[in-house]
Amino acid sequence: MTGPIRVAIVGMGKIAHDQHVPAIANNEAFELAATVSSRGEATGGVPLFRTLGELLADGPEIDAVALCTPPQVRYALAQEAIAAGKHVFLEKPPGATLAEVAVLDEYAAKAGVTLFASWHSRYAAGVGHARAWLAGRAIQSVSIVWREDVRVWHPGQAWIWEPGGLGVFDPGINALSIATHILPPFFLEEGTLFLPANRAAPIAALLNFRDAHGTPIAMDLDWRQTGPQTWDITVETDAGQLRLAKGGNELFLPAGEHKSDDHEYPGLYARFADLVRSGTSDVDIAPLRHVADAFLRGRRELVEDFHD
Amino acid sequence: MTGPIRVAIVGMGKIAHDQHVPAIANNEAFELAATVSSRGEATGGVPLFRTLGELLADGPEIDAVALCTPPQVRYALAQEAIAAGKHVFLEKPPGATLAEVAVLDEYAAKAGVTLFASWHSRYAAGVGHARAWLAGRAIQSVSIVWREDVRVWHPGQAWIWEPGGLGVFDPGINALSIATHILPPFFLEEGTLFLPANRAAPIAALLNFRDAHGTPIAMDLDWRQTGPQTWDITVETDAGQLRLAKGGNELFLPAGEHKSDDHEYPGLYARFADLVRSGTSDVDIAPLRHVADAFLRGRRELVEDFHD
Repeated sequence: MTGPIRVAIVGMGKIAHDQHVPAIANNEAFELAATVSSRGEATGGVPLFRTLGELLADGPEIDAVALCTPPQVRYALAQEAIAAGKHVFLEKPPGATLAEVAVLDEYAAKAGVTLFASWHSRYAAGVGHARAWLAGRAIQSVSIVWREDVRVWHPGQAWIWEPGGLGVFDPGINALSIATHILPPFFLEEGTLFLPANRAAPIAALLNFRDAHGTPIAMDLDWRQTGPQTWDITVETDAGQLRLAKGGNELFLPAGEHKSDDHEYPGLYARFADLVRSGTSDVDIAPLRHVADAFLRGRRELVEDFHD
Repeated sequence: MTGPIRVAIVGMGKIAHDQHVPAIANNEAFELAATVSSRGEATGGVPLFRTLGELLADGPEIDAVALCTPPQVRYALAQEAIAAGKHVFLEKPPGATLAEVAVLDEYAAKAGVTLFASWHSRYAAGVGHARAWLAGRAIQSVSIVWREDVRVWHPGQAWIWEPGGLGVFDPGINALSIATHILPPFFLEEGTLFLPANRAAPIAALLNFRDAHGTPIAMDLDWRQTGPQTWDITVETDAGQLRLAKGGNELFLPAGEHKSDDHEYPGLYARFADLVRSGTSDVDIAPLRHVADAFLRGRRELVEDFHD
């Protein structure tokens, strides 16, 4: 392939406007060739289509799609794009089930296109350095606290409360994407999901994981936190404490603070370009597998109704 | 290794007595060297230990363990056995979470021992022939109906209703182990789990899967069926109908009926011997992954309390 990768964004919601459009605009490996939205308006001078099918039939030539729709409809769009020979960037979570992602992975390999299950938090400013610092150190315990106000971050997003929408695991999977990137493999021992009586997905969860060495990893997810918000991962080691704050963007080590600029979506698009150029895929299911395990293994407790 | 594989059964419940003990007795590749049970009595002249730790410390030499305990405690026992260099046969389901099975798989590979996640229904008399008959045929639709009386099959088994115990998916995973063996890969599109208000696990489920070609696969699981019991998989194809009945033991094809003798557990132990002799593992997570997906993606509906 010569020239930029012509990419279409499908699903012009908040994340597409806030992150994908600027990340594509600032990466010369890409050109935003089209957008797809059943309701939205055109972005700049870029052609807008109502469905992916219309774009594929009548639109400009594209090489790739970035799927930013709710996860419940992602499989069908990904299959349609792969069938048309397009590379596919999946927003997180990569699907509504583990099995559908496995089917897509196999299908993309057969079709010779790139499938990228993206985990934006892994590209947060402190995460790479945290991973390097932890390698080889003895980990004694881990605490993950992800507490935010759902009314601020997901106003009126009904799909997030539906089956397949993950509830509080929608932000929680970001924490899990970091934890699975910087820690040895771990698994859920027991946990509790807190469900509003009028919703299908949890508003909070308390989970106890362990790794193969028995190291405890405690996770506290809550969507009911007003005021200051918390997205922290604290790791106690034989060499002192590591703390990632602000969703991985700030890193505190015994030797002092490490900060760098936010580059989550620029990092994702750089990675996607590498994958497309090298003809490979990157589909790490581990974060979604932990969420499925939490639904499978966790005890459910009803809490008061939630109204937007 | 020369001579028989010396195996210990851990967890002397119904499945151990009914299936494992006779299957081992009738396979000269194995010798039952010990049993482990916190409460049970000794089986024949075989030494009995109260814990796996006591067996490993004070018992006869063994080469392998068969873990027949409830899934919630399987990981710790498997890890202990692998650490002692023993091959491990896991009853189904192989664990209470997907992530713990992945950790065990990696650990067994590093330790150079065999890990076998067993799915006994795949060895039911009609399944191998059904798989061969379906290969290359165009599948139009699939119906899986698994309806039995929990009071008959799981009397007083409290663990089966606890988180990690799977509820009606304990038999349902047998159907899924056959379906994932004879059909192309498929995934859950939508479903409903029916939960007794006083239990943590479902008593029934209605699930709609599809494969990559769009073929519908409907699954009806119910633990409330008294009278005749149903364990059927019906596959409509371009060459007529295939029906597996009685949990895979009877096969009906357009050309007539195919029956053979039951060989589920003998088949499992023959496979386990092959794996141990060849130094390989067999850990297919697909059936448990579908169950996790059902818990993740399914809608929950409360039904009346269940009392044993």
